[in-house]
Amino acid sequence: MPNFQKTREYVTNLKLLIENSDREGVRELLADLFAVDIADIIDSMEPDEARFVMEVLDNEKAVEILVEMEEEVRERFLNAYTPEEIATRFVPQMDSDDAVDIINQLPNRVKDEIIAHLKDVEVASNIVSLLHYDENSAGGLMAKELIKANINWNISQCIEEIRQQAENVENIHTVYVVDEQDRLKGIISIKSLILSKPGSRVSDIYSKEVVYVNTHSSAEDVSSLMSKYDLVAIPVVDALGRLVGRITIDDVVDVMQEEAQKDYQLMSGISESVESTDKVWILSRARLPWLLIGLLGGIANSRVIGNFDHDLVIHPEMIFFMPLVAAMGGNAGVQSSAIMVQGLANDTLGTKDILPKISKEFMVAFLNGFLCAAIIMAYNVIIKQEMNLSLTVSFALLSVIIFASILGTVVPLLLDKIKIDPALATGPFITTTNDLLGLGLYFAIGRYMLV
Amino acid sequence: MPNFQKTREYVTNLKLLIENSDREGVRELLADLFAVDIADIIDSMEPDEARFVMEVLDNEKAVEILVEMEEEVRERFLNAYTPEEIATRFVPQMDSDDAVDIINQLPNRVKDEIIAHLKDVEVASNIVSLLHYDENSAGGLMAKELIKANINWNISQCIEEIRQQAENVENIHTVYVVDEQDRLKGIISIKSLILSKPGSRVSDIYSKEVVYVNTHSSAEDVSSLMSKYDLVAIPVVDALGRLVGRITIDDVVDVMQEEAQKDYQLMSGISESVESTDKVWILSRARLPWLLIGLLGGIANSRVIGNFDHDLVIHPEMIFFMPLVAAMGGNAGVQSSAIMVQGLANDTLGTKDILPKISKEFMVAFLNGFLCAAIIMAYNVIIKQEMNLSLTVSFALLSVIIFASILGTVVPLLLDKIKIDPALATGPFITTTNDLLGLGLYFAIGRYMLV
Repeated sequence: MPNFQKTREYVTNLKLLIENSDREGVRELLADLFAVDIADIIDSMEPDEARFVMEVLDNEKAVEILVEMEEEVRERFLNAYTPEEIATRFVPQMDSDDAVDIINQLPNRVKDEIIAHLKDVEVASNIVSLLHYDENSAGGLMAKELIKANINWNISQCIEEIRQQAENVENIHTVYVVDEQDRLKGIISIKSLILSKPGSRVSDIYSKEVVYVNTHSSAEDVSSLMSKYDLVAIPVVDALGRLVGRITIDDVVDVMQEEAQKDYQLMSGISESVESTDKVWILSRARLPWLLIGLLGGIANSRVIGNFDHDLVIHPEMIFFMPLVAAMGGNAGVQSSAIMVQGLANDTLGTKDILPKISKEFMVAFLNGFLCAAIIMAYNVIIKQEMNLSLTVSFALLSVIIFASILGTVVPLLLDKIKIDPALATGPFITTTNDLLGLGLYFAIGRYMLV
Repeated sequence: MPNFQKTREYVTNLKLLIENSDREGVRELLADLFAVDIADIIDSMEPDEARFVMEVLDNEKAVEILVEMEEEVRERFLNAYTPEEIATRFVPQMDSDDAVDIINQLPNRVKDEIIAHLKDVEVASNIVSLLHYDENSAGGLMAKELIKANINWNISQCIEEIRQQAENVENIHTVYVVDEQDRLKGIISIKSLILSKPGSRVSDIYSKEVVYVNTHSSAEDVSSLMSKYDLVAIPVVDALGRLVGRITIDDVVDVMQEEAQKDYQLMSGISESVESTDKVWILSRARLPWLLIGLLGGIANSRVIGNFDHDLVIHPEMIFFMPLVAAMGGNAGVQSSAIMVQGLANDTLGTKDILPKISKEFMVAFLNGFLCAAIIMAYNVIIKQEMNLSLTVSFALLSVIIFASILGTVVPLLLDKIKIDPALATGPFITTTNDLLGLGLYFAIGRYMLV
């Protein structure tokens, strides 16, 4: 059933069948569903119900569902099985990258036992070799399952190899061509494979134009290469240039989405990857650090104001525009840093030289700052505000927007230079700094203008 | 040359060859590069140089490069050609979706002339039919080029069809199976096609499990279906269920990245999609609207303070903590709205009922608010602040964090209900509203506590 929509009726119906232990009924109801849809239903079920469903379905489908389940649901589900059962029933049916992801989430003791119980030597060695890699590297993303052909073969040998590998490789995107030492030499596209004449040789039809990554390449590099070259799969080679795995676009799409989510959350001051469905205390914990930094900033602000309270006693009207000056610095700073962070993430900055960026940012900030200063000047003239105060506010606003924008440009670039995630410089950090900067400038200008 | 890195030397070298009109040299230097890498180099060249390079390369490569160029560079480049030249030299070699994207960027007059000059009837009708669709719909994303097989054929007919179509279809991911009325019936995977025995029929090996979209499905729906079901291509059907096109993952990856970028920019208060390389006035224009809203908020704040200036004269110490209370409201509100906006975008909210979300948010906010209030209380005790003011600050802080968090939760959900992009509720909007809310609450509580 393509384009399935989970309805309340459907789930109630399923739960009823499970309650009645109607194995045939459950099987029938779920027969046309994709694994990911069944996983979606199981995610909201009781462990007993989930287990019933999984036992009713054939093992191949059950494994597909297991891969698609939510992490915590899967952990709970696997708890009901011994490591040996997991090693024999589930792991051998999985793609090696999925198997490793799932095994890595289990406690170390269970992990070791599962590996010890893997009967198939190839499966075991694939998994053990993948366990080494950092999960954010190409090695951590790749699967060992792929179709490769020796450069000296002819096409019928190549087709024969596909036939043999077919059991393990779910989707065939490309055939990789290697030499006797297993070094990656090129690719054969599905098109040229299908169109090739029976007698032709691999060396006749393969293309040397192949984009690849190394096992230690970062997940971000993999994702930017695949999106730049519009690839659905990319081969991974080791330090000797030997083909050791391939990464498919679906895994990379997940990486891209996580990256974007991370930047977004950092900008909004959330320090862990959370979802609205997480528990209250996890949500609190993720949000507290930035609130504490904001608190510190607020206390610092209170000291700045304390230093200038003399001026405020003489010119209490200055208070009116404190929030305005502070907030506008924050806004302008966040805008600049966001543009830099995105430019760095998408690699669209062109050069990474800081100076031309600052001068451009200065012009943008001057333009917008001047407009804002003019508007607030007009407002102050209309409400017949004292001229010196009006000038102070407008001048402070212009300076704050310029300073905050330049700070918002420079900080992400500097962080990037020293290899710290520039996204850290967005949101609360820039806002808090610029609140301080804004008030400081405002009072300093006020002291000069209003004496 | 895979994994090509553009170096200054390389570009200087190329420019020198162009200056000397060394056609052979340019051809040789660029021979091993992918189109997207050449496009990247051309993007930073003078129009004359770009034209020289494009004229030197063979037409197929030139078309690929044209598709990959930056929009403005392409527009400038195409200006040098007549509509007839564009229609004969470039358009027929492109995938229909790329052709439509490029034609759509040209002035209407040029667009019509190009279409009038298209000689191949099929190319022309493909392009005309695609021009109808909204660019953010499945129809606007799809290409007409695909491999389809009639359900009554045998496999050799199917292979023959691929052979015929091969010229037009760049990447083969799947063969789509249709009936006599061209209605989508299922798919044949590349694996089963390669593994099928010569005598078998399409109806023997095709799978009915196919996920598809309608021409009017939104780009977001397409991208969430493809990422949910891990697809590299998805078929598009019309209202009668007839197969009319397919969308490939590379185009959808672009959509995903644009979506994420849009949300990010909205949160940072940037109202158009801009890059740091855009012109100063475009960057200014994109940033000004939110600055103006911030300005309005600041003016409103000055009125709020004006209403309470009596209290401030009696309790000038209240001023010290104005920025703190205002900023913390902004921070807490942005955190809540960011979590909602992401939950809505990723469809991970579970239910969309508002009430349980508010009560959960209340608990998170209470927890964090209480902690922050306690910390500021401790600080005020340490600096020997007057007790009533300390209580006012702590109590205001707790209330502001709670109110701002609930507002940050409710507003995106309400916007989503009335079909407005919830991301509009993030960043400057929430910050500005909460600055106001924060100060209002602070003064109200102060008036009550400090009399």
